[in-house]
Amino acid sequence: MISISDIESAYKTLKPVVHKTPLLSSRTFNHLNGNEVYFKAENFQRIGAFKFRGAYNKLSSLTEAERKRGVIAHSSGNHAQGVALASKLFGIKAVIVMPHDSVKSKVEATKGYGAEVIFCGTTTDDRERTTDDLIDKFGYTLIHPYNDEKLIAGQGTVALEIFQDTKDLDYLFVPIGGGGLISGCALAAKNLFPNAKVIGVETEGANDCFQSFRAKKIIKLQSVNTIADGMRTLSVGMLNFEIIQKYVDNIITIKDDDIYPMMKFFLERMKILVEPTGAVAPAAVMKNALDIRGKKVCAIISGGNVDPDFLKNIL
Amino acid sequence: MISISDIESAYKTLKPVVHKTPLLSSRTFNHLNGNEVYFKAENFQRIGAFKFRGAYNKLSSLTEAERKRGVIAHSSGNHAQGVALASKLFGIKAVIVMPHDSVKSKVEATKGYGAEVIFCGTTTDDRERTTDDLIDKFGYTLIHPYNDEKLIAGQGTVALEIFQDTKDLDYLFVPIGGGGLISGCALAAKNLFPNAKVIGVETEGANDCFQSFRAKKIIKLQSVNTIADGMRTLSVGMLNFEIIQKYVDNIITIKDDDIYPMMKFFLERMKILVEPTGAVAPAAVMKNALDIRGKKVCAIISGGNVDPDFLKNIL
Repeated sequence: MISISDIESAYKTLKPVVHKTPLLSSRTFNHLNGNEVYFKAENFQRIGAFKFRGAYNKLSSLTEAERKRGVIAHSSGNHAQGVALASKLFGIKAVIVMPHDSVKSKVEATKGYGAEVIFCGTTTDDRERTTDDLIDKFGYTLIHPYNDEKLIAGQGTVALEIFQDTKDLDYLFVPIGGGGLISGCALAAKNLFPNAKVIGVETEGANDCFQSFRAKKIIKLQSVNTIADGMRTLSVGMLNFEIIQKYVDNIITIKDDDIYPMMKFFLERMKILVEPTGAVAPAAVMKNALDIRGKKVCAIISGGNVDPDFLKNIL
Repeated sequence: MISISDIESAYKTLKPVVHKTPLLSSRTFNHLNGNEVYFKAENFQRIGAFKFRGAYNKLSSLTEAERKRGVIAHSSGNHAQGVALASKLFGIKAVIVMPHDSVKSKVEATKGYGAEVIFCGTTTDDRERTTDDLIDKFGYTLIHPYNDEKLIAGQGTVALEIFQDTKDLDYLFVPIGGGGLISGCALAAKNLFPNAKVIGVETEGANDCFQSFRAKKIIKLQSVNTIADGMRTLSVGMLNFEIIQKYVDNIITIKDDDIYPMMKFFLERMKILVEPTGAVAPAAVMKNALDIRGKKVCAIISGGNVDPDFLKNIL
């Protein structure tokens, strides 16, 4: 298992290239909520999400030979863009395998960072087969979206930056997809804010980690159903789950319907654009899922990449 | 005419109550634009626009007797909310005269800050008559939206904050409605950044100050036609124009159609919500209206209060 020093070391690597994202707050939100709440705005991160951190840290650790052969990732979302941008900065060839029905704007963004996009079918099997074939053929290194120590250490720098701006948190709310962000941040937080409770948040339609945490073993869902596209993983990774079991205090779920009012509040009152997955942890605070009052709370906004059509529907 | 010390004094008054808004930048924007560009994000100011600054500074200068009688303003936009919130913080009664066809969300926001809203007809005459009647009857103090020295000094604190974050600007782009923001900021900028050129920006459909600047006298339009609702004043104020003539280097215009791509870039790439008027100065930079390269440029985002329906249409 990685330690806080891996995260500190990742931060040394990342500091020159990441945005130090702000901790935002809203008087109105605090007044309505009854807590002192801060939002870590990773929607302002490069590529619009925290995923750039882990990808860049991972790529920084590759050997010269691996860099020459190039890297591959399968993702229809922010991981694709994170790997694409990090590869561009290192001058490494990146191949991204995406389902052929991916949102056009995400495909364009990934290509815009210079990655080669290879389309595949829409099932997990299609994606993995296409990726494996390309690895066999060209020797690319797979950049896993969450089950990787270098990646976890990179995502953990989010909590390191929170600590630079505020020292005494009572609660840290983190969204859970594959578990990369929460494993890195829980490990960092428990070292930096020993009194803070780390709370993972999922949507009910993708509650694999909620179930796994209670069962004390990884449970893999057959299918997921949620508007939070960053949470549509069937299970968390093994490396992630080890850390989650050790450092996370509780995992809770919210409904998809809790996401919309939070996204609207961010947009209309705080003037920031947050994607559905990015609003999940804040939404758990907004609905006061834990019934807390007078506490100092931080919720991580994981990203801000919203499809314009989706946004139109919310408005 | 006010001096830099009036603005510094306003900042002492405002510092405990305003948000110090960030200077934002985008690698992608800079790359496309060829300049080093910063956006002063007053869309993150309290009430969602710079207007709170001037209103609060003005109210801080009222006598005890004036405070007891209360204040009045006529506005369908951000000035209404600025006066409403400032009044609430001082415990002063505020009456806002609004056309009966005002956007519902702005009426609700104004009421939400505790102001009394009085509806009137839609013409300037209706608005002024209703306001004058109420002043005659109740002795309220009129808080003018731009033609007021205390107000101008308050708005000038925007430039003071820019100077706290960056010292050596080549250009400062400022939107012009009634002239409150640009007069305060031009005066401050010419003292703080003596080498910076201050450029005022209007839309073609509300180009009164553009015309006045060239004619060297205030020209009043018969009507305006622009989506930038904060620019729908028929002329700038006398106090504003004196300062503009002395300290502004040039005034340029853009088309309404230049506003949309800038708003979209802010939302989709920078994840922030900017209202049409707030995007006017940045849009002049985006289209490189002055054909500059390699310069350090700041454009002020005046506000972020967008009607959800309008936003839907843009998307």
